[in-house]
Amino acid sequence: MQDIREQTASSMEDLSDSEVDRLRADTPGVAHRIHLNNAGAALMPRHVVEGMITYLQREAEIGGYEASAENTARLEGVYDSIARLVGSKREEIALAENATLAWQRAFYSLRFGPGDRILTTSAEFAANYVAFLQVARRTGARVEVIPDDANQVLDPQALERMIDDRVRLIAITWIPTNGGLVNPAEAVGRIARARGVPYLLDACQAAGQMPIDVGALGCDMLTATGRKFLRGPRGTGFLYVRDDILKDIEPAMIDLFGAPWVGPQRYELRSDARRFETWDANYAARLGLGIAVDYALSIDINKIERRCRLLANELRAALGAIPGLSIHDLGEDRASIVSFTLHDVEAREVMRHLESETINISVSPPTSTPLDATRRRLPHVVRASPHYYNTIEEVNTLASAVRRISR
Amino acid sequence: MQDIREQTASSMEDLSDSEVDRLRADTPGVAHRIHLNNAGAALMPRHVVEGMITYLQREAEIGGYEASAENTARLEGVYDSIARLVGSKREEIALAENATLAWQRAFYSLRFGPGDRILTTSAEFAANYVAFLQVARRTGARVEVIPDDANQVLDPQALERMIDDRVRLIAITWIPTNGGLVNPAEAVGRIARARGVPYLLDACQAAGQMPIDVGALGCDMLTATGRKFLRGPRGTGFLYVRDDILKDIEPAMIDLFGAPWVGPQRYELRSDARRFETWDANYAARLGLGIAVDYALSIDINKIERRCRLLANELRAALGAIPGLSIHDLGEDRASIVSFTLHDVEAREVMRHLESETINISVSPPTSTPLDATRRRLPHVVRASPHYYNTIEEVNTLASAVRRISR
Repeated sequence: MQDIREQTASSMEDLSDSEVDRLRADTPGVAHRIHLNNAGAALMPRHVVEGMITYLQREAEIGGYEASAENTARLEGVYDSIARLVGSKREEIALAENATLAWQRAFYSLRFGPGDRILTTSAEFAANYVAFLQVARRTGARVEVIPDDANQVLDPQALERMIDDRVRLIAITWIPTNGGLVNPAEAVGRIARARGVPYLLDACQAAGQMPIDVGALGCDMLTATGRKFLRGPRGTGFLYVRDDILKDIEPAMIDLFGAPWVGPQRYELRSDARRFETWDANYAARLGLGIAVDYALSIDINKIERRCRLLANELRAALGAIPGLSIHDLGEDRASIVSFTLHDVEAREVMRHLESETINISVSPPTSTPLDATRRRLPHVVRASPHYYNTIEEVNTLASAVRRISR
Repeated sequence: MQDIREQTASSMEDLSDSEVDRLRADTPGVAHRIHLNNAGAALMPRHVVEGMITYLQREAEIGGYEASAENTARLEGVYDSIARLVGSKREEIALAENATLAWQRAFYSLRFGPGDRILTTSAEFAANYVAFLQVARRTGARVEVIPDDANQVLDPQALERMIDDRVRLIAITWIPTNGGLVNPAEAVGRIARARGVPYLLDACQAAGQMPIDVGALGCDMLTATGRKFLRGPRGTGFLYVRDDILKDIEPAMIDLFGAPWVGPQRYELRSDARRFETWDANYAARLGLGIAVDYALSIDINKIERRCRLLANELRAALGAIPGLSIHDLGEDRASIVSFTLHDVEAREVMRHLESETINISVSPPTSTPLDATRRRLPHVVRASPHYYNTIEEVNTLASAVRRISR
């Protein structure tokens, strides 16, 4: 009890200036760039890069199989780290080569028939949406968008009214790729659990930015990437699958790792979530992911979240004072993705200008969030995404640069 | 013409001692181990490791998206390198996160119905075989094994006799994981092309060990890994798909990279083989793969093949003189995988002994080649796989160590 109270108390605190200084000192990239592209790929802490480099050198010294055998315990520990991050059992975690592959393995393992309904959100990521379209065409299932509330955020009451026995899946993006919107993932989970509908949550932009508790979320499957707010390497991701549904799900594709051959015409699926993995992996990247997760946990995700929101709100305030600039983030509870356009300068042109000032941001094309972009007639938008290691000065430098670009 | 004659002449030469010395000097691992586990994962040349390290450091310095943007030309060049390696167009190459994923993307994109026939070989890799079983169960297709000749090598004449209009796929492993067997991949290709049957070739153990020419092979799809004889990083692989069949193949799973969203309910598949890719990747590993391929091409794959065969035959001769030792490689034309058992010491025990003498080999369990292992009642077998950078002394050191272990 003592521990929990202490942790709760500490979780209510903000990151101190000296803590931020220390975290910046761990981040080689802050010396080179004002990096506000954490929703794209964050700057890795040196621990992550050094861990990967040491591992790669070891592979070159003693061999790839030999290095992974020597590091079995550390490699297995990555599952424990991720389980801690999301509040699951380690057996419920599968590693993946990116978040899309994690998501595909979850989604395509589900079976649909004519008239089955897949419910999604207007904020859904395009990668997921084209997969829905493919499966709809293949099986006759229908893809339906859950209506939004007055703030253009998914409306749980509207979802509740849509549920019937033809709803076979609720699959939503928690935080979209194109703005600060935070969908009410927990409220969706309560409905999914109460009505017994499988619930697949894309947590790509949430992981590393805010606490994730799969129990509280009520999701059956959750996917995330390593490279964004988790500050892990590119080419990493993971999949959580709740253990009591695992036994009913056969991956759409199998190999000898997830489904060992056990008799003349028989294979047997692994009992844990690793049935969704294949045999070979980039172990350096996996270790890097584990180090990144441990690093995030060592800081305290609650503090990370508050610092992210502080910086994002500061940035929105500074940008909001620029004439001819529109901020496009939806909702009242907004995450650390700030999307905006200038009335007279196209987003990609803004990005080129900022690049020349060593400020990293990215651009979200309408094709990355087709439903939302169509509905709101969004052009390409500038996406700035601060992380806890950024400073107030940095977000203000971005805002000043944007002001100059807009003339 | 002059060039071709010169190249042919040079290709008929062996690697000289000084060339081998130079190649060993490029290979940090030879100072630490006698590495005869190239069929598992080869030792990377320093160029590959250094290239990856430099790239990872750059990601940490300027950001992951920013580093890949800065290296676009080099990253695109990886497709050219692989196209050169296999004699294809660059548009026919997709990169993958390992060979299994490359193979799965090819195989699971094909459609089968009840009674459709999938023809494979007794040497087939278990990962592929369990996938056949899954699809057979799902669709009613039948998996049939092409009979072998007297040497227990796939018999093209027997294949020819099996073909009818229900044969929807020929899918074979060129060189199995458990021994030196080389299946007649070109002869199979001639039959497949003549009879219009799709042909998927698993070239995992061939890539980097011997020349690959998809035109001469007559295959429609070919998959390989980076980590074995190509000496690339773990977690890399590629898929070749012949361009004139590409337009008829929709990947089993899609995302916004391979199938961009183009209208309210529409996506459009990329026109090239990269429709089989997803958006994010481990770019350090991709670059490492490209460097490894360029390195292999700079040596001359014909010379590599001859040197591999020389060392493998030397090893077989030395092992063959040990009482109580059985060599299990099939066929007359044998690649650089030497599999054997001792009558009185189990394979994993042999591996432990060799490990303590810093000799790297691996063990193939029967479950990795279920059909062949069942037919030949194979136990776990020791697998020793020399590469061109190994020496006659090293293979003889292995043989001496094995002789001591066998008592």
